[in-house]
Amino acid sequence: MQEVTLDIPVSADVAVLWHDDELFLLDQRHLPGREIFIRCPDVQTTADAIRAMVVRGAPAIGIAAAYGIVLAARDRYVRGPSGWRDALEADLQTLAAARPTAVNLFWAIARLRACAAGLGEGDPVPALLAEAVAIHRQDRADNQRMGEFGASLISGPTGVITHCNTGGLATGGWGTALGVIRSAHAQGKIEMVYADETRPWLQGSRLTAWELARDHIAVRLMADSAAAARMAAGGVSWVIVGSDRIAANGDVANKIGTYGLAVAARHHGVKFMVAAPTSTIDMDTPDGSAIPIEERPAEEVLQCLGQRTTAAGVGAWNPVFDVTPATLVDAIVTERGIIERPDRAKLASHMAAY
Amino acid sequence: MQEVTLDIPVSADVAVLWHDDELFLLDQRHLPGREIFIRCPDVQTTADAIRAMVVRGAPAIGIAAAYGIVLAARDRYVRGPSGWRDALEADLQTLAAARPTAVNLFWAIARLRACAAGLGEGDPVPALLAEAVAIHRQDRADNQRMGEFGASLISGPTGVITHCNTGGLATGGWGTALGVIRSAHAQGKIEMVYADETRPWLQGSRLTAWELARDHIAVRLMADSAAAARMAAGGVSWVIVGSDRIAANGDVANKIGTYGLAVAARHHGVKFMVAAPTSTIDMDTPDGSAIPIEERPAEEVLQCLGQRTTAAGVGAWNPVFDVTPATLVDAIVTERGIIERPDRAKLASHMAAY
Repeated sequence: MQEVTLDIPVSADVAVLWHDDELFLLDQRHLPGREIFIRCPDVQTTADAIRAMVVRGAPAIGIAAAYGIVLAARDRYVRGPSGWRDALEADLQTLAAARPTAVNLFWAIARLRACAAGLGEGDPVPALLAEAVAIHRQDRADNQRMGEFGASLISGPTGVITHCNTGGLATGGWGTALGVIRSAHAQGKIEMVYADETRPWLQGSRLTAWELARDHIAVRLMADSAAAARMAAGGVSWVIVGSDRIAANGDVANKIGTYGLAVAARHHGVKFMVAAPTSTIDMDTPDGSAIPIEERPAEEVLQCLGQRTTAAGVGAWNPVFDVTPATLVDAIVTERGIIERPDRAKLASHMAAY
Repeated sequence: MQEVTLDIPVSADVAVLWHDDELFLLDQRHLPGREIFIRCPDVQTTADAIRAMVVRGAPAIGIAAAYGIVLAARDRYVRGPSGWRDALEADLQTLAAARPTAVNLFWAIARLRACAAGLGEGDPVPALLAEAVAIHRQDRADNQRMGEFGASLISGPTGVITHCNTGGLATGGWGTALGVIRSAHAQGKIEMVYADETRPWLQGSRLTAWELARDHIAVRLMADSAAAARMAAGGVSWVIVGSDRIAANGDVANKIGTYGLAVAARHHGVKFMVAAPTSTIDMDTPDGSAIPIEERPAEEVLQCLGQRTTAAGVGAWNPVFDVTPATLVDAIVTERGIIERPDRAKLASHMAAY
């Protein structure tokens, strides 16, 4: 993968960048230390970058995949203006295989596939690019609506706990859980954000703290294991997280550690909010047990920032996500509104509302 | 502090080493990568090494302090054979100020102070050294008894979860929680040890995994935040941890993250065991709220293995310990036996039994 430095100000808003008819992904593995982009000239590089976590966060993965499909269609159309649509299917499969858990990836692929199916003769790129840009812009707008809905639930000023990164870097902009925190902060409701560092990738340390510090929102980083003690110490009224997939009954897959936060929150009477666009809700997945949970290489836990930290011969258990049952969720917030105490009926009605 | 390489096989049993009338501490900050010792020629170096976490683990801190007092008495006696005992008091204060939470430190100081008080004329070193060695040997023997008691509670084969390092490196040998796991493993009861990596110092990755791999006990390392998902996945019947101080009502101070494990264990019907010698029980501390919790520098959370991981201007919350209320503890195991569902009356009776 080719690393490039772009002559633009690096911010959370440029996680996924379509620039001069090319796709650039801010390489989040090196933030906040290095601000470089990976140039994606084709769909294979895009899929590789998604798998390698150059870009991460369910909505951002979906957006990157949408642009990846534009690259794929361009290549296929140049090679065969008549058979590009059939040939494209292999590229969609390549992208779909990059990460298994985040449903936004499959949702974005389905949207681009449907768009492609509706096209007539001629170069498909302008229409597919317009669809990818629409997904990208819509995600940002949806997050701002979600932010308002989520903020309306919070009585401040208060401390909140968040996990992983769900900000501009994980989305088309503003963020899901971090978008709610941004909106609530703008309303003067957020006293302090306690950010879990989020091992093994340290998205909290590297990305969330970086985003919040840039926005001058007070943040204190903590070891993931400190969250329960933080709740016991008081001053925290909400845990606010994103999601990679929400099942039809309201079970929530999200970054490993989310479930433990939900258990601790319930124990302490702290409320638990999941902020995610409706593209994260998968009505075809009946409950959490049907969500495929990605296990990544043991090496990610056996090392820290590339340095081996354990003795030879030690194994690891490295699930990237866990499932929080709907019964531990106080509210799911989407761009359409708030689902309090989610269950199957409420999700069905929420998804049917448009 | 002077780093030295000793011509001895490095194992968990040499965490605290009295050798040729000098104190050497295995520098645990560099394990498992580098096997070096810090030479402690005097009490100030010993206190500095305890503060810097060259040696850690409540019982090992107590043992190191005991030898540190021998060094202090030797210096004081050489400088003034008549006034050494009064002069020694300043050294005891220096040691007591090194770490605030682990009560074994104060317990060891009190034992050596009492020993010194009972001495007549002449060189106090032989008697004080004998007392330090007795504490050291007794700790190992106590741990083996504790291991048997703890193992008797476990029906195997089963998976267990442990946190931080409570093995030979943290004690005079064998270990507290890890001693229970060793004893239970010897009885064929341990199928798998799931070891929390234990940020920010990674004692689980660096020390516990190292000890278990050497003993050929199957271990899988996991991110601290994965523990609740591990319990939900099944196959784990006990969480087994050590302690830095147990209050008179059974509240348990231990490494940050212990409390979250206890909350999750109760939620899943997983049993929660605390293994600690009676020197960890502080009948003068009425309950957990009276235990001073050390907060260490934010820098420990803002970096990983010496590399800064966060943006400038980000703060951290870095309590080293948390308090698990007695109500979440299924059993406290000491060298004297088992206290099931601990409370004030049971602890008082346990401590009065000898």
